[in-house]
Order: sequence, then structure tokens, then C-alpha cells
Amino acid sequence: MKQAGDITLHPAYSCWMNFKTYQKSADQSIKKYCRFILTKISSRVVNTAVNELSAAIEGIYHIKPREISENHDVPCIELSIEENNSADSNQVCGFTIKHINEKTTDKIVISGTDECAVLYGVFRFIFSLGLGKSIDNIQTEQKTYNRLRMINQWDNLSGDIERGYSGRSIFYENGKITKNYARIRDYARLLSSVGINHIVLNNVNVHEEETKFITDKYLPELKKIAAVFSDFGIRILLSVNFAAPIVLGRLSTADPLDKDVQRFWHETANKIYSYIPDFAGFLVKADSESSPGPYTYGRDHAQGANMLADALRPHGGIVVWRCFVYNCHADWRNRKLDRAKAAYENFVPLDGRFKDNVVLQIKNGPMDFQIREPVNPLFGSLEKTNQVIEFQITQEYTGHQIDLCFLPSLWKESLDFDTAAKGKNSLVRDVVNGKLFHTSTGGIAGVSNIGDSPAWTGNPLAQANLFGFGRLSWDPALSCEDIASEWATLTFGSNVATVEKITNMLLRSREIYEDYTCPLGIGWFVNPDSHYGPNVDGYEYSHWGTYHYADLKGIGVDRTMATGTGFTGQYKNENAQMYEHIESCPENLLLFFHHMPYDFVLKSGLTILQHIYDRHFRGVEEVVELQKIWDSLQDEIDPDIFQEVRHRFELQLKNAIEWRDVVNTYFYRKTGIPDEKGRYIYP
Amino acid sequence: MKQAGDITLHPAYSCWMNFKTYQKSADQSIKKYCRFILTKISSRVVNTAVNELSAAIEGIYHIKPREISENHDVPCIELSIEENNSADSNQVCGFTIKHINEKTTDKIVISGTDECAVLYGVFRFIFSLGLGKSIDNIQTEQKTYNRLRMINQWDNLSGDIERGYSGRSIFYENGKITKNYARIRDYARLLSSVGINHIVLNNVNVHEEETKFITDKYLPELKKIAAVFSDFGIRILLSVNFAAPIVLGRLSTADPLDKDVQRFWHETANKIYSYIPDFAGFLVKADSESSPGPYTYGRDHAQGANMLADALRPHGGIVVWRCFVYNCHADWRNRKLDRAKAAYENFVPLDGRFKDNVVLQIKNGPMDFQIREPVNPLFGSLEKTNQVIEFQITQEYTGHQIDLCFLPSLWKESLDFDTAAKGKNSLVRDVVNGKLFHTSTGGIAGVSNIGDSPAWTGNPLAQANLFGFGRLSWDPALSCEDIASEWATLTFGSNVATVEKITNMLLRSREIYEDYTCPLGIGWFVNPDSHYGPNVDGYEYSHWGTYHYADLKGIGVDRTMATGTGFTGQYKNENAQMYEHIESCPENLLLFFHHMPYDFVLKSGLTILQHIYDRHFRGVEEVVELQKIWDSLQDEIDPDIFQEVRHRFELQLKNAIEWRDVVNTYFYRKTGIPDEKGRYIYP
Repeated sequence: MKQAGDITLHPAYSCWMNFKTYQKSADQSIKKYCRFILTKISSRVVNTAVNELSAAIEGIYHIKPREISENHDVPCIELSIEENNSADSNQVCGFTIKHINEKTTDKIVISGTDECAVLYGVFRFIFSLGLGKSIDNIQTEQKTYNRLRMINQWDNLSGDIERGYSGRSIFYENGKITKNYARIRDYARLLSSVGINHIVLNNVNVHEEETKFITDKYLPELKKIAAVFSDFGIRILLSVNFAAPIVLGRLSTADPLDKDVQRFWHETANKIYSYIPDFAGFLVKADSESSPGPYTYGRDHAQGANMLADALRPHGGIVVWRCFVYNCHADWRNRKLDRAKAAYENFVPLDGRFKDNVVLQIKNGPMDFQIREPVNPLFGSLEKTNQVIEFQITQEYTGHQIDLCFLPSLWKESLDFDTAAKGKNSLVRDVVNGKLFHTSTGGIAGVSNIGDSPAWTGNPLAQANLFGFGRLSWDPALSCEDIASEWATLTFGSNVATVEKITNMLLRSREIYEDYTCPLGIGWFVNPDSHYGPNVDGYEYSHWGTYHYADLKGIGVDRTMATGTGFTGQYKNENAQMYEHIESCPENLLLFFHHMPYDFVLKSGLTILQHIYDRHFRGVEEVVELQKIWDSLQDEIDPDIFQEVRHRFELQLKNAIEWRDVVNTYFYRKTGIPDEKGRYIYP
Repeated sequence: MKQAGDITLHPAYSCWMNFKTYQKSADQSIKKYCRFILTKISSRVVNTAVNELSAAIEGIYHIKPREISENHDVPCIELSIEENNSADSNQVCGFTIKHINEKTTDKIVISGTDECAVLYGVFRFIFSLGLGKSIDNIQTEQKTYNRLRMINQWDNLSGDIERGYSGRSIFYENGKITKNYARIRDYARLLSSVGINHIVLNNVNVHEEETKFITDKYLPELKKIAAVFSDFGIRILLSVNFAAPIVLGRLSTADPLDKDVQRFWHETANKIYSYIPDFAGFLVKADSESSPGPYTYGRDHAQGANMLADALRPHGGIVVWRCFVYNCHADWRNRKLDRAKAAYENFVPLDGRFKDNVVLQIKNGPMDFQIREPVNPLFGSLEKTNQVIEFQITQEYTGHQIDLCFLPSLWKESLDFDTAAKGKNSLVRDVVNGKLFHTSTGGIAGVSNIGDSPAWTGNPLAQANLFGFGRLSWDPALSCEDIASEWATLTFGSNVATVEKITNMLLRSREIYEDYTCPLGIGWFVNPDSHYGPNVDGYEYSHWGTYHYADLKGIGVDRTMATGTGFTGQYKNENAQMYEHIESCPENLLLFFHHMPYDFVLKSGLTILQHIYDRHFRGVEEVVELQKIWDSLQDEIDPDIFQEVRHRFELQLKNAIEWRDVVNTYFYRKTGIPDEKGRYIYP
């Protein structure tokens, strides 16, 4: 199927919606239902659903379905909205795909709780074709776990993307908002196909010109982009500058308790909604890494967020308020300071003070998107506050979309973590969706990994992360295996061996990346600024609060209550005890929580030092293994995609070798102890 | 005296030409000669000399001298050009200041070998007034040591200055050449007053737009700037892009043996000289840090440089060719690789192959402007090649004009180094001025430290480096003491106690900076990119070839012939042996040449480790001492200058503390050995 985008189409451009691949997988017995699409609903989003279904059918079965609004007793696919029997206006979005075969009726019915749900049902049906499901297996009933399934674009008006590794922005170029709506439409389609329903259009770090997005200067054009997303059931948010009242030259203060400031934001909200009636709200990074915020005026984050929330409430908008607040001028000399404690300390005292249309956006871990971190202890500690968990789809610390790193493996750990906040089985995913503490909304947010690169995500295999993010945001109970194999099948076809190989590559990739980078949860062995490649001491004496404290005898951060920073005490009792004690602390987080001697013996029987050596040698071997598997797929994969990924594996191997050698040499120089298996470590 | 610049004048703007200060120092008995300036010469530069002399007299004695062209038997100052009795067209620039008092004649005669020399004589006379010399002491006869006394501006057309710490460029702003000639004129005056006679107007890294400087697009404006310098006897050079024939879109190659390329450069030279008849030539950074060069075409540097020299020869121009050529993609694993060896290896084989109007510009040390390095072994090894030694006046690695660091102390070491190339007393200064090997030209080049900051050099005390550079380029035999106290007197007046204090601060400053930064010649403990502040491992695993190899037992680079990289063998025999052996190697360069155990005992009786601790503690104490001395001068110094320097000392102290703590902790963590004097080192 041809894509709408106006760029030269890369074979990976259609991502997991590759109907050429679907052709081979799709069950031919379903074709007969595809001649007619029956629907009585008239709405923008259902219209999209019909178009998407038609395009898919055409692409897969080479027939052009007819749209009908009356049942003519012919096999068809019917799209309908379920009648809402409950009085619950907060009904959860869901859809049903049924095969009805009785008397004169033989049809597939895709029904949803609302127009968006119908669209999701259609996409799910299309996926079923790609997955080769038979008519007997396509039936399903699904409800989303989360109200908020949100993408954050870190795109700047300049066209740069902060921490972007996939080319330039598709939204902005050279200081202007793009008019290439075709590409944006293609993106909206991809997002909607995996269930995303919100997108923040600009970087959380709001620079001067972007501050004007909320004015007449930019709203007419943003409205057009919003309309594209709206067709796909996706509502837009904007990142706003807390100091906008000052920066836009209207006021001398941004104090949230100031009447003029409040009026400014009310007027701003009114203006935005006059352009974009389904505008979703604001995302705010305040008092963080030098961005302005309520602290400037002696106010707290609740006062700051609530003020914005009041302005948006009349329109049904929300404020998404980031909790990435910490002291970025730390003193490395002071071992009692702990950046990991900051989010909890800043926000737990405010629990219960946030208005109902405020949502806190909390990074999955207490530090910053490292390859392995414990869950942020804010989850489970905020009982009266709406929350979303923030993941980073873009591979800032995890390989820049050069190295393969399937991130659902990491995200699942967070989502399935038992906070023990209300007894056993108090999972993070039930905290953020509001179930555990009966909060009104919540969900999952992810920092996008796409740009204008021909395959969207630079590395075509990194599409699996965008796919997986969407799927998990819809249903966090999905397994990584299912996500990976579903993605591989939809993208590369249903050849069992191929799917199995790629699935295995994906599932192993996160641990491989961990093997050759940062051991045992310590993190931060990375080059400052770029965050790619090794630099063990790169952050060690910096002001960022990110240390490992390696000396000749040991390494790690003592975060215990007994002798350390006390961070472990931010977890609920069972978890606090688990992390507090070396015996019960999960070994893959040992150095996150404890300063340990190199000769401490792990459960594997290896010392920590030998574990570091082993993993770094193994990491490189594993990358070679990944290369080999990929090379074995040459005949199965489109040659362009094959070569592009192949090239990235070459770079990954180079990177892995550099990591191995730098890290091993670093610890060899620190300890003087050679590898016990006699492998060469550079002196 | 009012300055010509159009900026709000900072009290430090006039630098060492501060006539308000001179007023108090100047001998009143000289005043009587100052009513008349007698000269029969009519030339641009002598005209400048007359103007400068008049302005100085007016500023100092408040009288306006009359210019006369006949001797009327009144006391006067006479400016004249000495008759050249020798047939030597290569006569060395020099001047004489004489007091003639016989019969009816009572005058001061300032005569020079040429018009520029007259100007230098006038400036020297003016300085004498500022130094409070009596009529009996002003007599002097001076010849310059060096033909080339050259400033390199690393200014970009954007207005940025590479490694500039004094604001923006005074030559360029926002992609345009400035029209603020007044400020450039003031700069020319300062340079000329200390004997500078060449200036390179643009960065050695020639970016795309600057490549067009040699075209009609920019030459009309560069011509105007050249004219300003010309008035002060300073000739301009331009840094050129070796790939200009390609970049300017004329040719598909820049191969120096290609006829079209040769024609391109001939035509370019013709064009430049049609605009700027006294144009001095080109500065070229080729095949260095990714800049293009002859290697691209399988040619060597002699072929590259000679091709350009041929183009310039008809006009009397020269090619200054930088020797900063090394592999910047080194592998840290390979301890036999040694960046220090690169310049020698690249250029010694070419000795004798460069044309007579080519001059090699060689950095003082073999690495890159570290606080302490040995002399570059190229000096003394090139016997048939014109050379200039390159110093960095701008404080890239030496404190960014925040920290006080009087660099003549460092430069003198290089200039006075005995290369042993032709027996004892084969000093570097005699290599570069051409005396030792009878080469035809040579001298000293320095990377400028000025910008549009109100005091020119950011830190007003950094003016001493510009002054000292000029003075040394004129006469490298001057002592640091003399330079420092002359500068202090001219700048701050002749109060003996004040001058002594400031002189001592300057003379101590380089070792203080060394104390709290990199010990024993090792270098590179600095933050990559910025080159300010500590980062001991910052370059340790990089591709820059700049390592210290610290492990738990020792530190340093083995550059011996016996067991190391063999770099010591690039020195002439005595020096090679001196550096080769630990016993004879100067201790302040010990770690540059040898990998040493921490417990090695230095002549001081301290181990290397304890030496590192001691020096870092001492460095901070000494900065506190500098602060105290400066504070004691509050009543002696203009309040604006006082406060500005005071603020910088506060920043320097912060920097010194950070260096002390990071370096000491680094080695404490490496060794586990505490300070033997019991001072606290952060763990």
C-alpha cells in the first residue's frame, strides 16, 4: 500500500502496518467479509476507521470494499458504537470484535464504547489479518487499562529534537511549524493503531520562541496539526513555560497566586480552546534543571499546578506536571546528598493538594532513564494524586537507536513492580491507572523516538519500542514475548523461524546492552552530554548528583537507612527492607543501593569484579551473536532494511568493544586484579 | 587621554598606555623637549609616530607639541631614519634614543632603521616616561631579535572567538566584518607599542564562509582593516582553507601538484595584492584535526606549502604553515602510540624541502599548550627550515582569563631551552630567529587573548600576557621580572610597593596554577571541550592521544627509548639522555617522560603521591594569598579594575578548591593512602 507521506518511501516507512507482508499472512477466508463495510455512524473518527479499514483491505486482499449503511444480508464488516447501559460517564474505552454467523447474518462486528474505540477495534482487526488469525481467532474483547496513553515529543521549533536520534523533527523546520501534514497524518495513524490517545507537540524544555505557541502567532497553525491528530482520536497538549506571563511581556511576575497571572492563564486557555476545542491541556516542567517554576515565588508545586488547572478546567483540560525536580548543583563531596530522593521529597508532602485535573508525570526510576534502576518510590506513596509513569522511548542512555535495545523489557519491570502500598499485589500499573487508590485518571507517557528519518526511528528495529510502548500503554499486562513477536510478525511477515529469531534478538537485547555498559544497577558510566559511549568517571565529580564512588576497594552508592542516604526508606516497608539489606537486595540493583567491596561474592559464585569482567566480555560476544543472527536473515528481510540494520550492528559492536575495554581497564587499573579466566585486559 | 574606541571606556581600556598614570611618573625635566617634534620624513607610519608622540605628550604633560621640519635650535624631539650604510637589505629593525646636548643643540633624537623602527622608538620613549626614567636614562639602542612578531586571531566571522575568553570578536559580528575601525585602531596601537608587526585576521580553522575571505566578496572590507594596521607597521595575513579551490566551487581538486590548483592560487594571490599591496601572506592549518591538506592527495606538507609559497613569492608574501599535525583518532589501548612524536615525525623528513618564503609555525610543546610541557623537539632538529614558535596568549588550558596565570614564565622556558643542536648554547630563541642555522626568517607567534570585553582581555591582569608576549617577541632575552614590573608600572603607576606586589603576584601565578592542576608535567586532567576545571579521567580513554595511565600503583607516560614510546629519542643527544633517565629528568616533567610508582621519592623527600597532595593543598592556600595581596591594594587601584579582578579571584579560588578536591580524591581513591600530614581528603 502506498503511504500518504511525500518523502521517498523507505521500505520501513510503513512500520508494523506493512500490508505487503500482511498479504502473505492474512487468512483468505476472511476476505469474503471485506467487500462491504457497514456503518450507520457518522463521525470524523469513525470515518477514519472506515478509511483505514478500506485501505487495509485493499492493500491486503486487493479488493475495494463498499461502504453501506443498511444491512443487506451480505457478509460484511460492521462498525458500531455500543450502547452505554451504565450511567457511568467515566466508562472505560474498549472494543469488541465478534463473528456473527446466524441464519441470514454472517458478518464481523467491530463495536466500540465510543468512536475512538471503534477505530482501535478496526486497527486490532487489521493486525489480526497481519498476524494470520483465522476467522475463529479474531474474536476479542478489550478494554484499555489506562485513560492517558501519551506521547511526548521533545521537538524544538528549530527542527532539532532534544535527545532525538532519528533525524529532524516532522513538526518543525528552521523555526517554523511544518505544513507537511501528510507525514504527520502517517504518524497519527501509527500512534492510533497501537492505542495512543494524547500527544504533547513540543519539548518540555520550552525555549523563548516556543513560549509563544500559546499565542495567536502559532495557534492557527497548531490548530491544523491538532485537526490531523483529532481524526485519529488523539488530543494534543502543549508544553508551556511557567514564566510565560513574563516572557510574553505581559506581566512582571509568574507567581501562581497573583491575580493577574491567574487571569493571564485563564485568558490563554480561552484563546487556545477557541482555536482547538478538543485541546487536552498543558505539560509542565517546572523548577527543574534551571526551568522556572513556582519555587521562584516561594510557592509550591501544588500551587503552581493548581493555578494552571483552574484555567483549564472550564474546558475539560488537564495539567500534566512533571516530577523530575532535583538539585542539579549537587556537591559530589557530600555523600549524604542523594538525587534519587528528590522526587519523593518534593511531591509526597503535596499528596492530596493537587486538583482533580492535575496529573503528575513521574519517571519510571528515581534517577534518569538508566538501563536499570529501581522503581521510583513515589509510586505507591502518592495516594490522592493522579499519576502517569514516564518512559523514554527514545534511547538516550540506551544506545541512541544505534544499539539494539528493546525497552518493553525495562518498562514491564516498572509496571509489574509491587509497591506493597496496599498489601500484596499493589502493582505500579494499578497505581497509575487509578485503580489502586481510586484516583480519577492516569496512565503512561513516553518520550517519542521518531523523526524524519526514512524509517521513522533511525534504526528500523527501534520501531519495536514505539510499537511496544503503545501496546503496553493500552494493556500493561501484555508480555514482552507477545509484544515482540507480534511486532516482528506484522513488520517482517509470519515466517515462524524469522519471527522467532527477531523476537529472541529483541528479548535479549536489553540485557546485552546492560552487560557491556553499567553493571549491577550503578548507571552513569556514560559520556556526559552525548550519553553515548563509556566514560566511567564522566559524571563522578560533576554537579549532577550521579556518582558511583569507585575506589580501590569497592563501588556503589550506600542508599540504606542504616549507614547511607536513607533512600531505601522511601519505599513501603517490605520493599524498604528488601533494598536495605544486601542479602535481599536484587543483585541487578546491588550497586544502586549498596557500596560493595569488589571481592563480594554474588549468588553466581563470582566476585563483583569478576562479574563486571565477565559481563563485559559476554556483552561483546552477544553483540557478535546478534550480528550473526541478523546476517542469517538476509534472504528474509527487505535488502534496504537489512543493510541499514546491519550497519547499525557494526556500530553497536564497535561501541560494545569500547565499553568493554574502557570499563574493564578502568577496574583493572583500580584493583590490579586480572581476569580470573585469563582474558586480556588492557593495562 | 581619551581613546578613539566608541565603547564606553573601561578604566583598563588603555592597558599599559595609561597616560593618567604616566603623569605621576614622568620626569618633568623631559617636558622641555616636548614642545617641538622635528621630522623631515613623510610616511604613513612616521605620521603615526608623530601622532602617537603628540598624544602621549598631551596626555602626560598637558602641552600640545608643534611639528616642525627644520631645526630651529630649540629643544625638541627629533624623529629620523638612520642611513643604511651597509648593503644588507636584510638589515634588522632597530632604533636608537639619544639625548644630544652640544653647543646650540639640546634635543632627544629617536632614530630607526626604517619607518616602523621610528614608531617603535617613539613607543619606547613614551614607555620611558611612564617608567619615570630621567633624561639620563632614556638613552637606548635596540634591535629586534625576530623578524616575525606575529599575533594569530582565532576569530570567526560569526563573532565567536575559538578559545576566546574576552567577549566577542572586535573584527567580526554576526557574520559580517566590522566597521568599527576605531577599536581596531586602538588594538593596532597596543600591538605596535610592544613591537608586533604581523597579524593573522581569522581563525586557523577556516570555516565555509571564511574560505571566501580571499575573494572579491570580502577583500574590499579586509583592505580597510589592513590599512588600519598598516598605519602602525603591522602587516596582515589570512588563514586560508587548503581546500579553497574546491570549496569556492572552482575546481574538483585541491591537489598542490595540479596545474589548475596552482593557477587558482596564483590568481588568488594576484587578486589579494591588488587590494592589499602590503599583504603579508597565508597561515595554513592543514591535515590537522580534520582540516583538509595535501595528504588528501598523497602529497606531503612541503609540496602543499611550496605550492602556496610560489603563488605568493612574486608579491613578497610568505606561507606560515602550522606543524600541529597528529592523529586525532588515537587508540588509548595502544601505549606505543604517542601524539607527542607526531610533529617531529611529520616534519623532520621534510627539512630542506620548504621554499625560502615558507615558515613553519611550531607549538612550543609537543602536545598542546599545557601548563607544563617540554620543548617541542622539532626545535633544533630542523636545520634548513624557517620557523616560528607558537605560544598561546589566550588561556585555553591555563585558566580562561579567570585564573591568574602570567605566561611569559612559561614562554621563557621554551625560548631559553638549549636544544644542544650545535653544541652548548643552541637556544630555541636562536633557532627561531634564524641565527643558529642561518635560516632567512623566523620569530614568534601568539594566539591572541583579546576580545570586545571592556578591558580587552576579560581579566585586566591578563593584559600582562599580551604585553609580555609582544615584549618577548621583540627581545626574548628580557627577564620575566623586568616584563612584569614594567607592565605593572605602566599600568598601575610607579608606587614601588604596589608594583612589587603585582610583579610578585604575576611571577608566582604560573606555578600556583600548576600546583592546583596537573602535577609533574602530566597534563590533561582537564574537562574535555571546555578545558576549564578538573576531570582527571576526562581524556583518559578518548581518541585524542592524551593520557596519564594512572592505576593503583603509578602514573605517567613512558616516553623513553628503552621501554616506552621512544619520544625522548627525538631530542638531541644530551637532552635525549637527560629525559631518558629518571635521575636526570627534570622533576617537573617527570610524569611527562616516565611512568612512575606513587611511592617514588622525589628530591624533596616526598613521594609522588604526597607531592600531589601537598601541591594541591598549597595551590589553594596560594590563591587565598593572591586574594589577600590584591585586597591590600584596594586604595591603589582604580575601583572598577579592583572589583573586576577581585571577582575573578573569587572564581579562581572556587576553581582551585574544585581542582584540589577532585585531584586529591582521585588519587586517594586510587591508592587508599591518606595525606601524611593528616589533612582531610574527601573519600
